[in-house]
Amino acid sequence: MGEISQSRQPSWEVVAKEHATKQLNNIPAEWRLAQDKLDQLSGVGTADEGRLVQLQAAKKSGLLSDRELDITENHTAQDLLPKLAAGQLTSVEVTVAFCKRAALAQQLTSCLTEIFFHEAIENAKEADQYLEKHGKARGPLHGLPISMKDSFVVEGRHASVGYVEYLRQPLPEGESTLVKLLLEAGAILYCKTNIPQTMMTADSENNIFGRTLNPHNTKLNAGGSTGGEGALLAFRGSPLGVGTDIAGSIRIPSVCCGIYGFKPTADRVPFAGQNSCPFPRNHLPGIVPAAGPMANTLADLKLFMDVVVGDRKPWKYDGTALDVPWRSLERLKAANGDKLVIGVAPEDEEFRLHPPVKRTMEEAAKKLEAAGHTLVRLPVDASRSMALGGRLAFSFYGLEGYPTNAEMEAEFGEPLVKSLAVGVHPFAQNPPPLSPEWSEAKKVAEWHRLQEEYCDGWRRAWLENGLDVILAPGAISTAVPHDAFGVPVYTAAWNVTNYPACIIPYGYSSKKLDPNPMKGHAAFDADYTPELQDGAPCSVQIITPTFKDEECLYAASIIDAVLNGA
Amino acid sequence: MGEISQSRQPSWEVVAKEHATKQLNNIPAEWRLAQDKLDQLSGVGTADEGRLVQLQAAKKSGLLSDRELDITENHTAQDLLPKLAAGQLTSVEVTVAFCKRAALAQQLTSCLTEIFFHEAIENAKEADQYLEKHGKARGPLHGLPISMKDSFVVEGRHASVGYVEYLRQPLPEGESTLVKLLLEAGAILYCKTNIPQTMMTADSENNIFGRTLNPHNTKLNAGGSTGGEGALLAFRGSPLGVGTDIAGSIRIPSVCCGIYGFKPTADRVPFAGQNSCPFPRNHLPGIVPAAGPMANTLADLKLFMDVVVGDRKPWKYDGTALDVPWRSLERLKAANGDKLVIGVAPEDEEFRLHPPVKRTMEEAAKKLEAAGHTLVRLPVDASRSMALGGRLAFSFYGLEGYPTNAEMEAEFGEPLVKSLAVGVHPFAQNPPPLSPEWSEAKKVAEWHRLQEEYCDGWRRAWLENGLDVILAPGAISTAVPHDAFGVPVYTAAWNVTNYPACIIPYGYSSKKLDPNPMKGHAAFDADYTPELQDGAPCSVQIITPTFKDEECLYAASIIDAVLNGA
Repeated sequence: MGEISQSRQPSWEVVAKEHATKQLNNIPAEWRLAQDKLDQLSGVGTADEGRLVQLQAAKKSGLLSDRELDITENHTAQDLLPKLAAGQLTSVEVTVAFCKRAALAQQLTSCLTEIFFHEAIENAKEADQYLEKHGKARGPLHGLPISMKDSFVVEGRHASVGYVEYLRQPLPEGESTLVKLLLEAGAILYCKTNIPQTMMTADSENNIFGRTLNPHNTKLNAGGSTGGEGALLAFRGSPLGVGTDIAGSIRIPSVCCGIYGFKPTADRVPFAGQNSCPFPRNHLPGIVPAAGPMANTLADLKLFMDVVVGDRKPWKYDGTALDVPWRSLERLKAANGDKLVIGVAPEDEEFRLHPPVKRTMEEAAKKLEAAGHTLVRLPVDASRSMALGGRLAFSFYGLEGYPTNAEMEAEFGEPLVKSLAVGVHPFAQNPPPLSPEWSEAKKVAEWHRLQEEYCDGWRRAWLENGLDVILAPGAISTAVPHDAFGVPVYTAAWNVTNYPACIIPYGYSSKKLDPNPMKGHAAFDADYTPELQDGAPCSVQIITPTFKDEECLYAASIIDAVLNGA
Repeated sequence: MGEISQSRQPSWEVVAKEHATKQLNNIPAEWRLAQDKLDQLSGVGTADEGRLVQLQAAKKSGLLSDRELDITENHTAQDLLPKLAAGQLTSVEVTVAFCKRAALAQQLTSCLTEIFFHEAIENAKEADQYLEKHGKARGPLHGLPISMKDSFVVEGRHASVGYVEYLRQPLPEGESTLVKLLLEAGAILYCKTNIPQTMMTADSENNIFGRTLNPHNTKLNAGGSTGGEGALLAFRGSPLGVGTDIAGSIRIPSVCCGIYGFKPTADRVPFAGQNSCPFPRNHLPGIVPAAGPMANTLADLKLFMDVVVGDRKPWKYDGTALDVPWRSLERLKAANGDKLVIGVAPEDEEFRLHPPVKRTMEEAAKKLEAAGHTLVRLPVDASRSMALGGRLAFSFYGLEGYPTNAEMEAEFGEPLVKSLAVGVHPFAQNPPPLSPEWSEAKKVAEWHRLQEEYCDGWRRAWLENGLDVILAPGAISTAVPHDAFGVPVYTAAWNVTNYPACIIPYGYSSKKLDPNPMKGHAAFDADYTPELQDGAPCSVQIITPTFKDEECLYAASIIDAVLNGA
């Protein structure tokens, strides 16, 4: 703590307000809707209030032409790219379509931070001109709009990650390595997306950009920390997004918003040059954050990895990126066959699953079994429980101890948002049993040792059962009411092991099928309230060992086809 | 510090003496030579005193038959394996030959720790019987004797790493993951090799097993921490050895003893389950130690990696081993062609090269240029200097601060050996400029950041110059008089970057060609004394970026062919 130089004049309220006004003004006036129109699109006062996806808010807004609706609703990134490269679609029309839809998503869900539609459309024009002039695409992502989490630095834009103090400082210099890579691959960047204060909660709210709402149900959280991205994608305001994940920050919004998200092995996707919070400290040992894609189809996750890791050679952009070649998925098909051995992770005894999660997980397992895959029910084992994984993860995040709310407020110079104030760090109250008198170095060494033990437990589970993948919940819950998500042990555990993990949407919470409410079991756990969560997307998580990113996506595509007929 | 439970009765002298006696008794009486015979083989009193290799001590000992001399002197591991697999050589005769030669090496250079020749020969018998019965080899290392650094745990053997205290404790349980892998691959383990107290000096001396001498010149150090292995291989008492390297512990003995040594990217070779010292602490952040091969030819280094990483899938043995496939070197040939772009690392301005090192490096560069390779002389750059690399490395090792000699003695319960007492941690006196008031976590975070910057400097050097490999010295010096080796910045820097690095012997120190003495430049640096170092092997170091282990060995084989006509 303590790096921020704090002049703090004018007050945080003034600075935040001023920036929010600028943000709104970056949406062309003709794309801004009056409040009563927005309320109508949100179904305010109706039984379906806030169910923007179900209400077809985009279609009914009148803002997008039929062609623009078609581009944004019926095309994946994989569909768009060959058409863009062939000139069947211009980058300008695709970019305008997604800018419009993102503008609407922003007005309905507060999913964006920095907005630069104007420049994006200029860049799209250049892409179109390039294609016309040279008769070939500028790169494998030619003309495709891509949205990114606010932590990524785009030249000339703020990357405040929701801190008012950062707005008082000069614009960050240069750009993130992944930004450079995507631009060189031909992508069009047009907006960045909202995150929680500290990027360590599952509610993407901060004092500058407000709170991101879930487009499936605005009464529920969109997840975090890449929550704006989750909401934007679920609203189909982006064909492809980028997040980061140190405890679940790609996967939690994917779970909450019913989209696909992939956390690769750390440092396969270039990570360097992002802006970060003063707490927890960057560059701490033990758990390395990963950047990865979020999308509306599994094929688009694979497309991102194929281009970024396969085609672009991340090491050329980023000294921390690993120079491990991306392997062809075609070859894996021959190696594995199409029938998988799937280990089903048990429900954690401390972190109990909400009924819709339990039901859909079980349905998924049965469906996969019926499709000829082998399902191995892994027994409960305390040495590799999700609770232990979460505890280890939060030990590393809080290496220097967790500050009190008063300390954080003093440090940040602005009030804490509620999801932070209520406490997302319960393990600070129940850390692994190490002497508080130990030096931090000794603690790190011991945590590293415990982490190795934990990983080894999972390795043995793998080998003993001849697993191809693990099928696990992505969280105890679906999206939940705001500021109630709890501790994400079902995602954080796979950060401790550094295992690739992919979220696949599957099924929905149902007050009919899951009629019994449930109180949160562990400290900070969310409650399940059938009426409130009715219709929230459910999902499963597919996990493979470290560096088996290719296998993870390959197996996920087989599983997705079984579950969703994709 | 402070983990060792210290009963300390009987005294360290008694415990150490008792173990040394046991050790001697593990050499069959008929392989033990009288002291006057050993003196004669060492040339005591002659001008060539201590030049065991040059004096052909093994041949003159009369201990080995002509066939045994032929097996140990004229065969590489690569030569032996097909003959063992075809039954042209029995594992028993090969094992006996290397046991005998290792026994002699031990009597002349104190290169061994645990000796288990008897059991090895029994295992070799079983291997031969297996081959006869099944008509096929037990594995890719069928019947081949392999020696390992003392830190590796072999079931039923001590792994004291030179600490008397560890001899008071029960035998370590189980075995190291690499030991298991090698045994399953068919190897015969027959001895472990000597290391320095703390494994953090370049003089392999401790209070149990004494001091390892350099077989090229027993007045010079054998290097450390895998010094026993270096001496054993140089004496050809092993066809293939295994070391570990966190600052140069594979490469320094390779430099000193004139052998080939390879430090891979960390965790490509399984590392887990070794015994370690109480200081520096295990599992610290920042620099991960690597296990790797040492041998008398480059092809044998490659053979080790082909079997251990390529054939055996280390992740199956070890949760910390990376599951990154070993790539075929045949394919790289096509990709790179046979002409390399070689960056020549500049001499560090603080750590000056001894004249023979400077001369042979220059000769090597010229020879490579003459052979058609492109040499790029990299400019001096403080942001990626060897000195800065060394400073960062020693910051991580000493995260908790370096203990005083008195503190170490109190902790260990035995006196410090001289190379430790004189201080190998000069950077403790000159660490990077961080406030001593910072928490350890904050220091780690800052060192991580500096480490990333350092790596990025090297990455840019790579890209800007289109390099295939870097050619660099392995140390400022050749082997030097005992307890004078100094700070190994030319190796430690590549631990900071986690770059694969390979030592290739090339040329010799020469009082005629390098007639001018030189005082050590930096604190703790060795002096160059032409007469003393005359005839000591010189070497070069070949380096590639992280995970380019295959490219490193491939390029090293091209370079070795140019330099040594291999």
